[in-house]
Amino acid sequence: MKLALIGAGRIGKVHAAAIAAHPEIVLAGVCDHDPAAARRLAETHDGQVLAVDAVFDDAEIDAVLIASSTPTHADYLECAARAGKAILCEKPIALDLTRTREALAVLAAHPVTCALGFNRRHDPQFAALKQAIVEGRIGQLETLTLISRDPSPPPAEYVDASGGLFRDMTIHDFDMARWLLDEPIHAIHAEGACLIDPAIGAAGDIDTAMITLVTASGRLCHIDNSRRASYGYDQRIEAFGSLGMLQAQNETETRLRFAGAAGQVEENPQPFFLERYARAYRRELDDFVASWREGRSPLAGAEDGLQALRLASAADLSRREGRRVALSEID
Amino acid sequence: MKLALIGAGRIGKVHAAAIAAHPEIVLAGVCDHDPAAARRLAETHDGQVLAVDAVFDDAEIDAVLIASSTPTHADYLECAARAGKAILCEKPIALDLTRTREALAVLAAHPVTCALGFNRRHDPQFAALKQAIVEGRIGQLETLTLISRDPSPPPAEYVDASGGLFRDMTIHDFDMARWLLDEPIHAIHAEGACLIDPAIGAAGDIDTAMITLVTASGRLCHIDNSRRASYGYDQRIEAFGSLGMLQAQNETETRLRFAGAAGQVEENPQPFFLERYARAYRRELDDFVASWREGRSPLAGAEDGLQALRLASAADLSRREGRRVALSEID
Amino acid sequence: MKLALIGAGRIGKVHAAAIAAHPEIVLAGVCDHDPAAARRLAETHDGQVLAVDAVFDDAEIDAVLIASSTPTHADYLECAARAGKAILCEKPIALDLTRTREALAVLAAHPVTCALGFNRRHDPQFAALKQAIVEGRIGQLETLTLISRDPSPPPAEYVDASGGLFRDMTIHDFDMARWLLDEPIHAIHAEGACLIDPAIGAAGDIDTAMITLVTASGRLCHIDNSRRASYGYDQRIEAFGSLGMLQAQNETETRLRFAGAAGQVEENPQPFFLERYARAYRRELDDFVASWREGRSPLAGAEDGLQALRLASAADLSRREGRRVALSEID
Amino acid sequence: MKLALIGAGRIGKVHAAAIAAHPEIVLAGVCDHDPAAARRLAETHDGQVLAVDAVFDDAEIDAVLIASSTPTHADYLECAARAGKAILCEKPIALDLTRTREALAVLAAHPVTCALGFNRRHDPQFAALKQAIVEGRIGQLETLTLISRDPSPPPAEYVDASGGLFRDMTIHDFDMARWLLDEPIHAIHAEGACLIDPAIGAAGDIDTAMITLVTASGRLCHIDNSRRASYGYDQRIEAFGSLGMLQAQNETETRLRFAGAAGQVEENPQPFFLERYARAYRRELDDFVASWREGRSPLAGAEDGLQALRLASAADLSRREGRRVALSEID
Repeated sequence: MKLALIGAGRIGKVHAAAIAAHPEIVLAGVCDHDPAAARRLAETHDGQVLAVDAVFDDAEIDAVLIASSTPTHADYLECAARAGKAILCEKPIALDLTRTREALAVLAAHPVTCALGFNRRHDPQFAALKQAIVEGRIGQLETLTLISRDPSPPPAEYVDASGGLFRDMTIHDFDMARWLLDEPIHAIHAEGACLIDPAIGAAGDIDTAMITLVTASGRLCHIDNSRRASYGYDQRIEAFGSLGMLQAQNETETRLRFAGAAGQVEENPQPFFLERYARAYRRELDDFVASWREGRSPLAGAEDGLQALRLASAADLSRREGRRVALSEID
Repeated sequence: MKLALIGAGRIGKVHAAAIAAHPEIVLAGVCDHDPAAARRLAETHDGQVLAVDAVFDDAEIDAVLIASSTPTHADYLECAARAGKAILCEKPIALDLTRTREALAVLAAHPVTCALGFNRRHDPQFAALKQAIVEGRIGQLETLTLISRDPSPPPAEYVDASGGLFRDMTIHDFDMARWLLDEPIHAIHAEGACLIDPAIGAAGDIDTAMITLVTASGRLCHIDNSRRASYGYDQRIEAFGSLGMLQAQNETETRLRFAGAAGQVEENPQPFFLERYARAYRRELDDFVASWREGRSPLAGAEDGLQALRLASAADLSRREGRRVALSEID
Repeated sequence: MKLALIGAGRIGKVHAAAIAAHPEIVLAGVCDHDPAAARRLAETHDGQVLAVDAVFDDAEIDAVLIASSTPTHADYLECAARAGKAILCEKPIALDLTRTREALAVLAAHPVTCALGFNRRHDPQFAALKQAIVEGRIGQLETLTLISRDPSPPPAEYVDASGGLFRDMTIHDFDMARWLLDEPIHAIHAEGACLIDPAIGAAGDIDTAMITLVTASGRLCHIDNSRRASYGYDQRIEAFGSLGMLQAQNETETRLRFAGAAGQVEENPQPFFLERYARAYRRELDDFVASWREGRSPLAGAEDGLQALRLASAADLSRREGRRVALSEID
Repeated sequence: MKLALIGAGRIGKVHAAAIAAHPEIVLAGVCDHDPAAARRLAETHDGQVLAVDAVFDDAEIDAVLIASSTPTHADYLECAARAGKAILCEKPIALDLTRTREALAVLAAHPVTCALGFNRRHDPQFAALKQAIVEGRIGQLETLTLISRDPSPPPAEYVDASGGLFRDMTIHDFDMARWLLDEPIHAIHAEGACLIDPAIGAAGDIDTAMITLVTASGRLCHIDNSRRASYGYDQRIEAFGSLGMLQAQNETETRLRFAGAAGQVEENPQPFFLERYARAYRRELDDFVASWREGRSPLAGAEDGLQALRLASAADLSRREGRRVALSEID
């Protein structure tokens, strides 16, 4: 697969390294609105700098990986679809439902392989948890708990561009909930608070949240979010069912344990998503290439992006109005 | 302390054993509406059978432990207060707020030492968690998660008499939430489902629940309940704060670990509350005797019973009406 | 069972409390060469002070618990056997093999129930490990590792009276090895060092040791001892076999876990044997009463004391001569 | 660094993959006595097949990685040294001390960068443990325990060529002991048994061993080996010191935990060395390139190979003669 990388920022670099190490992908080039950033990243991986328009015009390029800033995602995705390129797009497609639906319409008219960057589905531990549920290890899944806490809050200025905690951070949990529950969500109740950084509150957002999802058949899901955890990046899942419980625990760099006068001490979780999901980013790329090669759907696609965004919108409405929201209200 | 035990059923037996082993308590006698049950338990502990009225009339008896059936609690509590006896009463005082408030009024008029059987406050692990919060180990407490799952559901017939899941089972979590958050609860949202035993649903109750509490200052608390856990009695707490997190984990009979072809296996949690809270029942009695001797309030009292019941009532309303309920609505 | 307690020191107090709580034992009285100590302990448990001779003469007394200083054990044991009393004797019977064999000869001539205080056999976790081996959970047991470290070293003056590390501390591990391996020990190699307190070395003893035992069939056992562990009383066992491994882990007061910037911290093991083996002391007494009542052998008897002492003697010889010692040399 | 890989077997493939992914190494070619094997591996990594003599004659080649069969190691190492190539040689240099010493003499005469493949020193967890000891985290190191168990025994035919358990398997533990104790070993006592596969015993070897090392200053080290562990590749270290204890625990693929009626189950350790030490092989290569570039000694060198082999020889002597052996005997 000959692939162009659009976006040379933090997440672009992660993808560039994974692309370079992938035996089936050739890096066609790197695009970025900042030519210097594009050049630095291109040089690191023996690639060239490309203008984004040239990418869509180049018949030899099979695929694009969209890792540019959020507001550009939908445009690039539509261009790529129209040009018949396979697409791996970072989430979200857009921050609002209307724009997202437009992009999905273009994809419907120009069917190409389109994977969305819900990296957690590709984490080996979460994948093993999903597999165990599917195999019936815990019988009927009844309740699900997702804990997702960042190591430290973003600057308050980031809040606006990000779409807020539900669209920026919880969106991953919404996707995991949909994937693991494997059933439509019927209703949602969200509570949020600004307990960490008053500037986030002043910017109209929250930094702490608890959300309850109810599925059509009555199963329950709890999401616990915080923008700051003193002990690192906290990423856990608990799936409870009629025959047992599965717990995905935090991962650490090593298993070294120290015992001294002050207690038995183990390492904290890996610091942030780059470390925690390093394996997931590699597997995400594997799945993208394989789905393109085999003509099958990738593990997460554009429709999953839309549905996660609907949940984020419903959560926003629930929190702002202080009430339970039926998903049927969000359209 | 010369103490009479009212109630010779399951929980009465637990208390009788703790009383027998307590160096400062003399068992004055055992009362039960079933004279044979009273006699069997009295004989086990070298005590005598007493009529309940005789207990209240006997000036030599310092205290009563009310462990009879729930509908009798408020009556016996009032009699004991009027007779000037110290009281350790199993929860709840009553299943409705009106009757509970009447009993509190009698207590106000006849001030005696009155402890309520919220046994979990006396659990050494939960007490250590509370202590660590108070000492500032995790900085400001921001979110709290209480997981409480029974090993197996009660018969559906039990549901009616019990007042339902929120009043019977979650009541303990409501009390723990109040105790650990140490701040008024402002609002509640409760979701429930009947996923385990349809007969429980037919009886108008639920067997699975997720509840969110919001405090006056905006802190959040999640309660997770199930009437059945295949792996035993699941009793965990997670307190998350600005400087760290405390986790109370399940306790096991031993720490024996087996490694074989199928994995690394550790013991399941202790089977049910008799085993899990054996130490708590002994410490509850210690606190009761000490508070009586020292003329101070016990760790949990009648007002705590009332407030936990208000939360249960609010949870019921929230679930039935599918909406967030302000605690100010419950009066 | 009417039982007299001989010895009102540290371990005597532990036994006195267990006796007081035991439903089948009546404390006939307490003896000690220090009358004030005997009186204090007797008063605590509503017992009386007895002269030790009076105990052996009193036909109403069924049993004695010998918890006096080590040099008196063999004499009291012989007196008790001749008087037909059941005996629970703290280990060791004596510090040398000759005196121990004399005591065993008296027991052979006067057969009474005689239990030896190898408390670890009664620990619930070690008992569960033994049970799992017997049930074949790990197939053929091949290697065994015993880790036993005290929280802090005794004063060097203690060393002489104690018989040294192998007879005083490792003796418990020798007994556990014999019990778990369930096969004669063929050879032993012991290494020791004085790494903690030079005064212990000056007194002719060691504070750190590693010992290898070889059974008749070639199975191997490792014992790891230290007189000081900064993190508390370290008591672990690992049994490795053809089908798996069993690990007895340290026990803690609670399972509370703290996560903060410095890592994930769990409690240290219980501080010392009084806490760690509190359950074992109660079960030891249960086994003693039951074996007396049923006329069967207790879980550990006088012969076990002799055999553990033979291993300690062999270890001493091995270390002093810097060579592997065959058990057949020790007689 | 332009590097030729000598040996296209199992371990050669591991190194080839690490070489291919290394940014500073160019694979000059692959040699193997089996041309088909060399060709397959060369093709996988876009390299060419080379005759081994051509490697030593090619002035453009900077380095060789010797991963051929053990009997060829010393010859190739000497050729490479004489040709002035940097060397990364799989352990052991040879199975006997004389041949090893000859090779070291050639290296002394032709000083080149020479790293020996003691991969465990490069494991991130063991490296962190070493670092913590060096930093004084546990005060004075007093005892060390190394547990090293393979998942399943090799065929008995393998035994002869391998030099036996001590030279083939324990050699890694001997190196870790030397590295972590950081002090000359004074004496050794080894016990071995054939408990797993009688064919191994018939071939004159053992499959189970326990070894004690004593350092010059009296510190103690225990090594526990088995050729078969039902639960996977067991690689643990425990370092005990005056201020604390460090435990390197087994690593697992994920941290997923299952709780059901049969207990709480976690994953077994990674299956074997390829998985467990994948990171170590990459870091070993990093250290090799860096030491060559910087002109410094690599983390493990030829002298370390000699000293570990001396310990293996001493262990053999100890076991065969049933006695403690002073290292001064081995020369």
